[in-house]
Amino acid sequence: MAEKKKRRRADADDDDLPFKNRLKPDSVILQTLRSLTGSAATASSSSGAKTLTLADLALSSTCREVADLSLSSVQSSIESLILRIARSILGGDGFAFDVPSRSSANQLYVPELDRIVLKDKNTLRPFANVSSVRKSTITTRILQLIHQLCAKSIHVTKRDLFYTDVKLFQDQSQSDSVLDDVSCMLGCTRSSLNVIAAEKGVVVGRLIFSDNGDMIDCTKMGMGGKAIPPNIDRVGDMQSDALFILLVEKDAAYIRLAEDRFYNRFPCIIVTAKGQPDVATRLFLRKMKMELKLPVLALVDSDPYGLKILSVYGCGSKNMSYDSANLTTPDIKWLGIRPSDLDKYKIPEQCRLPMTEQDIKTGKDLLEEDFVKKNPGWVEELSLMVKTKQKAEIQALSTFGFQYLSEVYLPLKLQQQDWL
Amino acid sequence: MAEKKKRRRADADDDDLPFKNRLKPDSVILQTLRSLTGSAATASSSSGAKTLTLADLALSSTCREVADLSLSSVQSSIESLILRIARSILGGDGFAFDVPSRSSANQLYVPELDRIVLKDKNTLRPFANVSSVRKSTITTRILQLIHQLCAKSIHVTKRDLFYTDVKLFQDQSQSDSVLDDVSCMLGCTRSSLNVIAAEKGVVVGRLIFSDNGDMIDCTKMGMGGKAIPPNIDRVGDMQSDALFILLVEKDAAYIRLAEDRFYNRFPCIIVTAKGQPDVATRLFLRKMKMELKLPVLALVDSDPYGLKILSVYGCGSKNMSYDSANLTTPDIKWLGIRPSDLDKYKIPEQCRLPMTEQDIKTGKDLLEEDFVKKNPGWVEELSLMVKTKQKAEIQALSTFGFQYLSEVYLPLKLQQQDWL
Repeated sequence: MAEKKKRRRADADDDDLPFKNRLKPDSVILQTLRSLTGSAATASSSSGAKTLTLADLALSSTCREVADLSLSSVQSSIESLILRIARSILGGDGFAFDVPSRSSANQLYVPELDRIVLKDKNTLRPFANVSSVRKSTITTRILQLIHQLCAKSIHVTKRDLFYTDVKLFQDQSQSDSVLDDVSCMLGCTRSSLNVIAAEKGVVVGRLIFSDNGDMIDCTKMGMGGKAIPPNIDRVGDMQSDALFILLVEKDAAYIRLAEDRFYNRFPCIIVTAKGQPDVATRLFLRKMKMELKLPVLALVDSDPYGLKILSVYGCGSKNMSYDSANLTTPDIKWLGIRPSDLDKYKIPEQCRLPMTEQDIKTGKDLLEEDFVKKNPGWVEELSLMVKTKQKAEIQALSTFGFQYLSEVYLPLKLQQQDWL
Repeated sequence: MAEKKKRRRADADDDDLPFKNRLKPDSVILQTLRSLTGSAATASSSSGAKTLTLADLALSSTCREVADLSLSSVQSSIESLILRIARSILGGDGFAFDVPSRSSANQLYVPELDRIVLKDKNTLRPFANVSSVRKSTITTRILQLIHQLCAKSIHVTKRDLFYTDVKLFQDQSQSDSVLDDVSCMLGCTRSSLNVIAAEKGVVVGRLIFSDNGDMIDCTKMGMGGKAIPPNIDRVGDMQSDALFILLVEKDAAYIRLAEDRFYNRFPCIIVTAKGQPDVATRLFLRKMKMELKLPVLALVDSDPYGLKILSVYGCGSKNMSYDSANLTTPDIKWLGIRPSDLDKYKIPEQCRLPMTEQDIKTGKDLLEEDFVKKNPGWVEELSLMVKTKQKAEIQALSTFGFQYLSEVYLPLKLQQQDWL
């Protein structure tokens, strides 16, 4: 408390900070947020659009997605698959795997779902064929290894999987790619196979959850926060009194908000994957959004890369489109830093950076993407970015003082409900 | 418990795993470890070598190191420095900063300390000189910003610092480099300046500590573990019943040990920086070692890079040699994977990788480094690596089963006290 008071006093001379005088008392902002959350929760439970699944849509082409399966279902799926193969061999027909194609020609963006999904093309992978004997052998071996993981009920990384049979797999890209095939064949997510990616994200704020049986209170995680667990299936019992989830692109902004305990002033959950989103953080964000029914507000750099990161959280990466339903979080709002904020908040010229040729190209490409086009506000912002050829990092706000982000920018954004 | 039993049963068919039959009961291994920790603690408190400081050594050249200073000391140091400058200007003499040189010519490896330190060369940085006017202006501005941080008692990243005055700093390397100069000038660590690096490391196991006032029990952090806080000065109250600290190079091995709760079978603290060690993890490891007086056992890849990582933890990086006393952890033991383990544990040929030309060069360079030369065991191992031209990752052990690392390799290493 004394600490807090001292900090405020030191800030007293900052009262001439741009827009600080526009801030209403916290209680007013909180009132706004509360009414909002109430309606968001109602909207998401009543509006059909939020709970649409592939099955609800009468699509011209058949599409497929994978689901989270229990360990025992995965195990028995593998067993029935192998039994079918054994019968086929005993019947004198040899064997072949029927593998869903994951090529981009077989991918489809579904606007109603706002996700990329797989169409129904399959490829046969016969054992008795020179061109596919290696791949079908690798597929069999991966199935065997996954079966072992199910029996032991343990998790391993892709790298571990590769090393169990280097002689056969030769390099990790081969075992990784077949692993994705196996997910599609069994119709389950990669995390259902107990193969996990390295963890990268952290979470802090008004969230309590269980990690592998331990109850974690994220308001009591100091400044470091809680590392997001690599295996989402052992995460559960989420409880929260937060009004929103703040998704932060980068570390530095996360640290600022964690140290200032921003979540105590405006009840929220702060999460970051420290750059490019990893699978564990994406699963964790989705789980929070689904179970807690909270709006997700994103704070990313004002550059094409920031928007790209938003899109990976929001509608998936092409590489794992078969799993888009489980990996993506619908309805993420673009809070900032938006291209229009640069002038609005009077970010000085020297804190803006010129976009490179590559940046501009990426920006123009993004303007053609469905997930951008369906949101007119995003199109407008992105067009402005490409036109002005300027970008800026979240840290550019530090030009008004280290705590401008947490003391002025974010509260004002919340007060004005300034997100798209 | 039932889980555990099931897991063991599933392992029953693994009894023919290499060397599994050599394992003694856990109670015997624990007895060994306990006697060891007792003597280590005694050794480190009684032996003078462990508590040597620069001041204790009669070195021919004067060397300097920085120390952790409180915020108020940093603040008053800056104030007296600026007062001196003001007097100098008022006296008609203009002003200049007297900056310790951080060039490699001014660095020295001190075998008694097993660290790199700075010698006593200084460079004058006058304001009234075309070649140094920019740098002395930047130095003044950084001093002003640090002074603000002290007054507000908040932490920022180097990136934040850069963005407070992009026009002056032009690019971040300039503000970063002057920040290191300011550390040296004030004789304090960079963390004393409240400028922090992004956090990367995680910790799990038998450790309780406070992070920014919150008590954290690392046995209750599930599989994800606790993110290591970026600001070591808010970490305190470390308590532990561990017998050793297990320093792990990479994520995958960390995840294996966290999921298996290895720390419950053999009481330990498991820590990783996920690759190249960052400042926060190095500070945290040192603090644990110093306060808990536990041996540190390192599990790294069997390649020159693994040894290099060990050396950064152990005796510092050249870039921050002025701060080596606070960043380095003395007496880290090389547990594995050691080049001699490849044959000893019969790692199959296909799980070993040929060293590249660059690897071999790095290996040979390391053989010339003082910190390797002072440990005959390390020289022997590294020579073997360079001779056989083979390297291997920790994950290579997965070839004997996913849990070989936690169930056989590590317990056997502990039983045989097989570290260098």
